[in-house]
Amino acid sequence: MDFSSFLTSLATSFIIFVVLMILFALLASRPGNNVIYYPNRILKGLEPLEGGVKSRNPFTWIKEALTSSEKEVVAMSGVDTAVYFVFLGTVLGILVFSGMILLPVLLPVAVTDDGGNQTTSKGTFSELDKLSMANIRQKSNRLWAFFICCYWVSIVSFILLWRAYKHVAWLRGEALKAPDVKPEQFAVVVRDIPAVPEGQTRKEQVDSYFKTIYPDTFYRSMIATDHKKADKIWEELEGYKKKLARAEAVFEKSKTTAKPEGTRPTNRTGLLGLCGSKVDSIEYYNEKINETITKLEAEQKVTLRDKQQNAAIIFFSNRVTAASAAQSLHAQMVDHWSVFAAPEPRQLLWPNLKIKYFEREVRQYVVYFVVTLTILFYMIPIAFISAFTTLQNLVKLLPFIKPIVRLRALRTVLEAYLPQIALIVFLALLPKLLLILSKMEGIPTESHAIRAASGKYFYFTVLNVFIGVTLGGTLFGTLKTIENSPNKLVSLLAASLPGNATFFLTYVALKFFVGYGLELSRLVPLILFHLKKKYLCKTDAEVKEAWAPGDLGYGTRVPGDMLIVTIVFCYSVIAPLIVPFGALYFGLGWLILRNQALKVYVPSYESNGRMWPHIHNRILASLILYQVTMLGYFGVQKFYYAPFLIPLPLLSILFGFVCAKKFYPAFERPTLEVAANGLKDAPNMDLIFRAFIPPSLSSEKIDDENFEDARSNV
Amino acid sequence: MDFSSFLTSLATSFIIFVVLMILFALLASRPGNNVIYYPNRILKGLEPLEGGVKSRNPFTWIKEALTSSEKEVVAMSGVDTAVYFVFLGTVLGILVFSGMILLPVLLPVAVTDDGGNQTTSKGTFSELDKLSMANIRQKSNRLWAFFICCYWVSIVSFILLWRAYKHVAWLRGEALKAPDVKPEQFAVVVRDIPAVPEGQTRKEQVDSYFKTIYPDTFYRSMIATDHKKADKIWEELEGYKKKLARAEAVFEKSKTTAKPEGTRPTNRTGLLGLCGSKVDSIEYYNEKINETITKLEAEQKVTLRDKQQNAAIIFFSNRVTAASAAQSLHAQMVDHWSVFAAPEPRQLLWPNLKIKYFEREVRQYVVYFVVTLTILFYMIPIAFISAFTTLQNLVKLLPFIKPIVRLRALRTVLEAYLPQIALIVFLALLPKLLLILSKMEGIPTESHAIRAASGKYFYFTVLNVFIGVTLGGTLFGTLKTIENSPNKLVSLLAASLPGNATFFLTYVALKFFVGYGLELSRLVPLILFHLKKKYLCKTDAEVKEAWAPGDLGYGTRVPGDMLIVTIVFCYSVIAPLIVPFGALYFGLGWLILRNQALKVYVPSYESNGRMWPHIHNRILASLILYQVTMLGYFGVQKFYYAPFLIPLPLLSILFGFVCAKKFYPAFERPTLEVAANGLKDAPNMDLIFRAFIPPSLSSEKIDDENFEDARSNV
Repeated sequence: MDFSSFLTSLATSFIIFVVLMILFALLASRPGNNVIYYPNRILKGLEPLEGGVKSRNPFTWIKEALTSSEKEVVAMSGVDTAVYFVFLGTVLGILVFSGMILLPVLLPVAVTDDGGNQTTSKGTFSELDKLSMANIRQKSNRLWAFFICCYWVSIVSFILLWRAYKHVAWLRGEALKAPDVKPEQFAVVVRDIPAVPEGQTRKEQVDSYFKTIYPDTFYRSMIATDHKKADKIWEELEGYKKKLARAEAVFEKSKTTAKPEGTRPTNRTGLLGLCGSKVDSIEYYNEKINETITKLEAEQKVTLRDKQQNAAIIFFSNRVTAASAAQSLHAQMVDHWSVFAAPEPRQLLWPNLKIKYFEREVRQYVVYFVVTLTILFYMIPIAFISAFTTLQNLVKLLPFIKPIVRLRALRTVLEAYLPQIALIVFLALLPKLLLILSKMEGIPTESHAIRAASGKYFYFTVLNVFIGVTLGGTLFGTLKTIENSPNKLVSLLAASLPGNATFFLTYVALKFFVGYGLELSRLVPLILFHLKKKYLCKTDAEVKEAWAPGDLGYGTRVPGDMLIVTIVFCYSVIAPLIVPFGALYFGLGWLILRNQALKVYVPSYESNGRMWPHIHNRILASLILYQVTMLGYFGVQKFYYAPFLIPLPLLSILFGFVCAKKFYPAFERPTLEVAANGLKDAPNMDLIFRAFIPPSLSSEKIDDENFEDARSNV
Repeated sequence: MDFSSFLTSLATSFIIFVVLMILFALLASRPGNNVIYYPNRILKGLEPLEGGVKSRNPFTWIKEALTSSEKEVVAMSGVDTAVYFVFLGTVLGILVFSGMILLPVLLPVAVTDDGGNQTTSKGTFSELDKLSMANIRQKSNRLWAFFICCYWVSIVSFILLWRAYKHVAWLRGEALKAPDVKPEQFAVVVRDIPAVPEGQTRKEQVDSYFKTIYPDTFYRSMIATDHKKADKIWEELEGYKKKLARAEAVFEKSKTTAKPEGTRPTNRTGLLGLCGSKVDSIEYYNEKINETITKLEAEQKVTLRDKQQNAAIIFFSNRVTAASAAQSLHAQMVDHWSVFAAPEPRQLLWPNLKIKYFEREVRQYVVYFVVTLTILFYMIPIAFISAFTTLQNLVKLLPFIKPIVRLRALRTVLEAYLPQIALIVFLALLPKLLLILSKMEGIPTESHAIRAASGKYFYFTVLNVFIGVTLGGTLFGTLKTIENSPNKLVSLLAASLPGNATFFLTYVALKFFVGYGLELSRLVPLILFHLKKKYLCKTDAEVKEAWAPGDLGYGTRVPGDMLIVTIVFCYSVIAPLIVPFGALYFGLGWLILRNQALKVYVPSYESNGRMWPHIHNRILASLILYQVTMLGYFGVQKFYYAPFLIPLPLLSILFGFVCAKKFYPAFERPTLEVAANGLKDAPNMDLIFRAFIPPSLSSEKIDDENFEDARSNV
């Protein structure tokens, strides 16, 4: 890619961004769109906008985002979101502080050398390379400047990461200390309950076990059940209820318009409502609802009595006891009565609770193996894509497209976008698969599964996108290096980095201009909402469902950002020009997502910042990759003092080790100091207990006394 | 070493053993020696012997040892000792079951082959080699028998180790469940207490912290103090008290014999009682005692008030709370308020309590580094010793000793014993050093420090003695192999094993015949006791001190046994003749130590079997070393199916992993299930509290109220 196509790409991206921003300013000021641009505020019962809508400056949101405090973010969107901003802010800080030294020092040093023109051979040399380390002659003393900058980037990272970890630990502590009664702080989940002894029920077994250990603070227990079937019936019931509401709404509407008595809506009972006999909808659904309720009640009875599993939720009347129980070893054999702190009720993955201790271990390793295979096999098509989508290579391989490529305009656009778009589409396919795999490990909570999937996705993107694209391009260019590649991976990677600098520069720019532009303008949800509202929705509930904003999407957002972190770290010293692009990515991201967090997204769970240790470790992993790559690159440049970079990765490992020792345990286990803080009011234990009853099993009609099989009495 | 010198060695060892046994039978039947042969029973207030002494058959002790139950061992000598017998019994079981297949199968297979005489070149070939794998021709199908036996030994080990771990876990559980009140079950030790806030005392800080978390069960706290100086004064005081008692006894004695008024003993006040003015001893010591008591009381005040440290012992009125507190995370930052379960008061290493979290970590790694260096540097002299002490090598290097060696009798004895004795003496120097190093890690309890030292000693013996001797001999024999040794260590080790089989056979025999003979006959303590009693002891307390039996000496005994385990494992298939020797070692050891445990040794602490996971892991490590060596040896024998042995070490690692997951946590942390068992009677909290006061700070005179600075009130 030459310089002009790089500029074209940048300019196009910027134009798209500006258009999206204008669209946002226009659309967001229309009150009819409030549910799309301010759903979080609306759901929280606040006015969509603080000032009046009319008097609003189209740039007010920027001011609002910039002046919002972390406390507001926590209040509006939870600790997890606040932690995400700590992540964005920390990386931004690292890039700004690094750039303050890297740009004024390295750019002049690079541009004034005459360079070995080392990268021309790969056909990717451009004006940009003059500003990079590739322009420095081998063994030159100028390399010292780059060498020192390697240390500078690392030290800035260490300092800011330490501060961030400390801050997040404090945030988590504050959130857990809060005097509000949270049901999950009074419960622990126990798994691997041994077989029920002769002459006892599961409930009696669990109750007597915990009553012995906690005579004063044990409240009651809830045995986990296999309620898949009840869930299904319950969903069916909810479906009928919605359809009934819809039919009633249609009937109401028909009344007011043509004839006062209205037309009663009808439907067919057969497949998809297309065949079968025609019936009166309202009557039909009422009948169906009654039928299903009876079915559900019967299934609830069966579930609670006969589908009990070897897991239970234990409730304590006291936060400290629950916190302490969650981290204590209860049984002599670890594969019996293993406990963990209860998550929020909505996060519990019931079907995973029954999986036994060693089965979980085995599943975990099987999943790791499958994920490793996935990562390795995805590598092949990605390498092909990255190689094919370089126009030079395409022309080489398919000579008949040469005439097309000769059209200058088309060629420029193709060069600028083809590889990046291919890459982005390709990556969108994976996260779901990884989440399913993570759940198959037997992880018992939603947030943990998302963290696990997110971690896998990170390794995937770094290995495949970053290393794959880098090496893929080089391997195609210099096929002869394949033979000795396995044991020279680092130096090969290092050698091929400069050739791909512009590719990644464009990638970053595309991602932040177009990605964040789409994010802020919410064009897709807006169009979908208006379509749904016009053609599909009949009841208020349906309209509300149509604009439901969803959550921030941690699971895929963080690995995406982490890929940018990795790219920017690795190129920071080689091609310092990437640093402002990275800073722009995280700065713009911070600003736009701040707006989205405050006004749009509604978190679907709260893990009180447990994501941070994962993020921290992955930033460190990127840093280490960068340090090792630099070590290799200085070797390629024949800089004799390159071994003096060896302390850097060691220092990073030590830093990670100290952080893990100091901060991590408080993320893994509830601390007693925090749990011992006073509560606003005495906990209502019955409410706490009820919070954990799955919706398909809770019913106002059902009297507790009849269903105490799976729940113990006080 | 040829066959005759091996037989000589064996015979001499056996004769020494028989002599020692006869001595034991004679000496143990004399009532005057009861304090040497039955001190444990005497200290427990039992009759030295159950039957009368006269009617005693000299072999009754064997019957008594064989019929004693594990329960009796626990009652007489504690769980740790019982666990040691589980270790001996398990290894014995492994060897007996292995031998039942190995001997009848492998010996005929080996002896009927004509052999490659592979080891003659090393000058150590003997008739014994005909019974070993060295007698099998390379690539022979007979190797299949040896191959299958490798699997047999491993599988027997897995089964018996699993059963043993389960049994020890049960033993530990039973001991911890016991309804007796043990002070350590009501306390936790907290370290890394942050700096005292303005306007609070350390005591107030600790009390308010724990009162908030445990409002109902917190009893009181005891701040750790730096009482080194008080200890010194207290020891001085105890010394004076002993001297006074001694002077009074001398005076008493002088009264009854010559003149009725007696001679008042005198001493000199100067250096070692040799110079200075002469004074009346009784008066002088009385005066000194009063002086020292005043000094001690002043020092106690200063210690309790001004020498408080950042650690404390926290007492709870409840076993479950203490157990749960010991394993819960209290503070958000792990390097503050870190807790661990209190050990027995006598095990606490007070000076290590104050060491801070990260300092402990750093110390640990520094000590590991120093130990690694020690292991590597000890290797050099040991290699020299093993090479020099082979007579052939001595003659080669020092030709002038040839005439001496020509004396057949001398030569045989020298050949038989020189290397083994050198080795044993050399190894006796190290354990103390390792214990000091382990304590420098900051380990807070005696038993833990001993475990740590013992673990280091194991790696030392295996690396230096086993590998060192084996390779050392070979390296001297075939100096040319040094060049390619680093990356061929396994096959070099495997190749040199057969040449050293007889050396280790002799070593094992010497160790069990002479070692256990000395152990049972207790000749050294007996002689020392009689000498002391006759010439030194004046008071009853002094006599009692002279026969104090000490403990079993876990710290050095286990690594010694483990070395035998390693040797026998590694040679079991190569030279199956070593298996009965190993079985004899562990059988005899079991029998003789059973007697010693029941009648002689008094345990100096009780860790409820926490040694077992260490022993288990080290047996596994030996097993893996054996499996890897066999893999190498089959390679040396050019057996094409050798790679089929690769699953064995992997299986061992998996086995160790599963055991660690399943059993280990209950050894590391107190389980609540166990702590929740009922107590015989309500705990006397004041007694529990007082049990932890160091002797130098406890005083009947001192009123609690005056010294509550370091101890909080109820």
